[in-house]
Amino acid sequence: MNRPAQSSPSALPHIEALVPYSPGHQPEGDGWIKLNTNENPYPPSPEVGKEIQTGLQRLPLYPNPTSAALRDALAEFHGLESTQVLVGNGSDDILNLLFRSFCSDRVPAGMLEPGYSLYPVLAGIQNTSLVRIAGNKEIDLDPDAISASGAAIFFLTSPNAPTGVGYSLDQIAAVLEDYNGLLVVDEAYASFAEEDAVPLLEKFPNLAITRTFSKSHALAGLRVGYALAAPKVIQMLDRVRDSYNVNSLCQAGALAALRDAGYYQNVVNRIKTTRQNFFHELKVRDWFTYPSQANYLFTEPSKPDGKTGPAVAEELFQFLRDRKILVRYFSGSSLTAGFLRISVGTDEQMNLLLTAIDSWRRHAQQK
Amino acid sequence: MNRPAQSSPSALPHIEALVPYSPGHQPEGDGWIKLNTNENPYPPSPEVGKEIQTGLQRLPLYPNPTSAALRDALAEFHGLESTQVLVGNGSDDILNLLFRSFCSDRVPAGMLEPGYSLYPVLAGIQNTSLVRIAGNKEIDLDPDAISASGAAIFFLTSPNAPTGVGYSLDQIAAVLEDYNGLLVVDEAYASFAEEDAVPLLEKFPNLAITRTFSKSHALAGLRVGYALAAPKVIQMLDRVRDSYNVNSLCQAGALAALRDAGYYQNVVNRIKTTRQNFFHELKVRDWFTYPSQANYLFTEPSKPDGKTGPAVAEELFQFLRDRKILVRYFSGSSLTAGFLRISVGTDEQMNLLLTAIDSWRRHAQQK
Repeated sequence: MNRPAQSSPSALPHIEALVPYSPGHQPEGDGWIKLNTNENPYPPSPEVGKEIQTGLQRLPLYPNPTSAALRDALAEFHGLESTQVLVGNGSDDILNLLFRSFCSDRVPAGMLEPGYSLYPVLAGIQNTSLVRIAGNKEIDLDPDAISASGAAIFFLTSPNAPTGVGYSLDQIAAVLEDYNGLLVVDEAYASFAEEDAVPLLEKFPNLAITRTFSKSHALAGLRVGYALAAPKVIQMLDRVRDSYNVNSLCQAGALAALRDAGYYQNVVNRIKTTRQNFFHELKVRDWFTYPSQANYLFTEPSKPDGKTGPAVAEELFQFLRDRKILVRYFSGSSLTAGFLRISVGTDEQMNLLLTAIDSWRRHAQQK
Repeated sequence: MNRPAQSSPSALPHIEALVPYSPGHQPEGDGWIKLNTNENPYPPSPEVGKEIQTGLQRLPLYPNPTSAALRDALAEFHGLESTQVLVGNGSDDILNLLFRSFCSDRVPAGMLEPGYSLYPVLAGIQNTSLVRIAGNKEIDLDPDAISASGAAIFFLTSPNAPTGVGYSLDQIAAVLEDYNGLLVVDEAYASFAEEDAVPLLEKFPNLAITRTFSKSHALAGLRVGYALAAPKVIQMLDRVRDSYNVNSLCQAGALAALRDAGYYQNVVNRIKTTRQNFFHELKVRDWFTYPSQANYLFTEPSKPDGKTGPAVAEELFQFLRDRKILVRYFSGSSLTAGFLRISVGTDEQMNLLLTAIDSWRRHAQQK
């Protein structure tokens, strides 16, 4: 059975057909104002570096396989039991585990649109069909549509990506009352919001919440996320995750960050103040911007003559990029194509951005 | 459609039925001689800590999504192209990607027994049937059996786990000549072996090799592994992996380790010398031990009266554990149940182990 010439075997058909996730551009070199991937413009707590330094001693040994100390600390932080917590290699790891555990090529998943653009990719990898419930410009929730979706697991980004709108606890509770599947509330940005879904865990065992240290804790480079859910759900995810999914340094660093809550409250407050000021500046320029509960603003750029739309948004995106200011443009859907998503940086960064925006507006007026 | 009482939705049936992987015991507290998980008894290169320290500056930013600099360095190290390399969150991450990309509930996988005990768990998570080709005590390879297995992907641990036996390049090439699927040679321990399968990559696009920094580079706590394969295979794995699967500190630390090749050659040589001495000591005691090309020995404990078997192996395992010496006991199969797997530690650790073994033998004689 010798082949005439060896070749690489094909992967599964749905993998060969997959459109991979496209992460935000990470530019090489200095001098960029990077407002495209919702990173925190401030450094992490100095305690993080100290604990990581201490953790170097333990590198020859395998990490604690369950991230036990971090689970305990997270449980205490949220007023939950440790059995309700699972730690992952970023919250993307957790989202992936949820897809693998609860849906398949015969069991569909669902998501509210717009939402985190990773979900369709994870659905593709799992070869699962993804029911998309389209939101409107007001980004309401429709509990009946979610209940009737037939999805065994449903993903809701709150605060929403990319709009930044936060769903109220009442809206989320209304979904949980009726929905028989697992509702995943992806709270990557909850630290910047008015409220979060954690209090609902007590009443609703069909709720799972995902969180990350990437944004609020300025640790995107470390990759630590976690899930909060009923013990039965956590047990399933624990079976599917890599036995050593979170390395020693991540466990040590995240634990140190969690303990320095005062430092991070200060960082989050600064970002929220900058967000409010920048929102106001956009309003002054007559741009529609969603009221954001996240560390970014989703805004519809308009020219001085009032013109908006995909061509306008893309033009500004390019204009800014040429001046080494990176924001995010999602051309994919009609709900997003006329908008730009702008991460909230420091006041200084936002002022430089405003100057560039005003320069673009003058430029547009003169054309 | 309100339910009388909310409950957590069930996971997929094969997840609910899963028997999870059981990692080797990580004891709490000090004073243990830990020879149960094949960790390196020596510290990593001091360059690793320095680079991680420098990398702390970059923690607020997302990591390089493709681990580009590390891929380039690994390619150079192995004399390959960067397109033939993929970096993972430990080699377990890579093995998981291989399962997800190449087999499914309709497309079986295969493994040689004995082999790394994670494969059946990964098959279970992927709901794929796993064809097991049983080895004999000589741990030969049977190319015809593998070709006829019907498996789209076949996992071979070389040096073998838990025996430590290394397959020759000729044996592996004979499999690759005939097999139409993807042969994965899991080389977690290849740094301690006489030869490795990397030279076969040039001729065989149906070969994938997995490696790890955990053992030879004393970085089990850091979680860095990698795959070497044809670009077409790497492309598929790249689609399925998490976009930021390897954090900044891992990338920096592994790169530093790779650059300090001289340091690690010295560490590996010391471990090989200790392995040879310990093998000799076991032979003196008339124990059968597989000739190991890894950083562990798989040995069949016997009592002074020559008695061997599962009860004997388990008795010694417990005896050692009571004295805070941890080795690994695999009760699962008839090929392994009479044996213990002992990681190669420092000379001092192996001498303490020998003293304990001799104490057990005297104890057994007196009973």
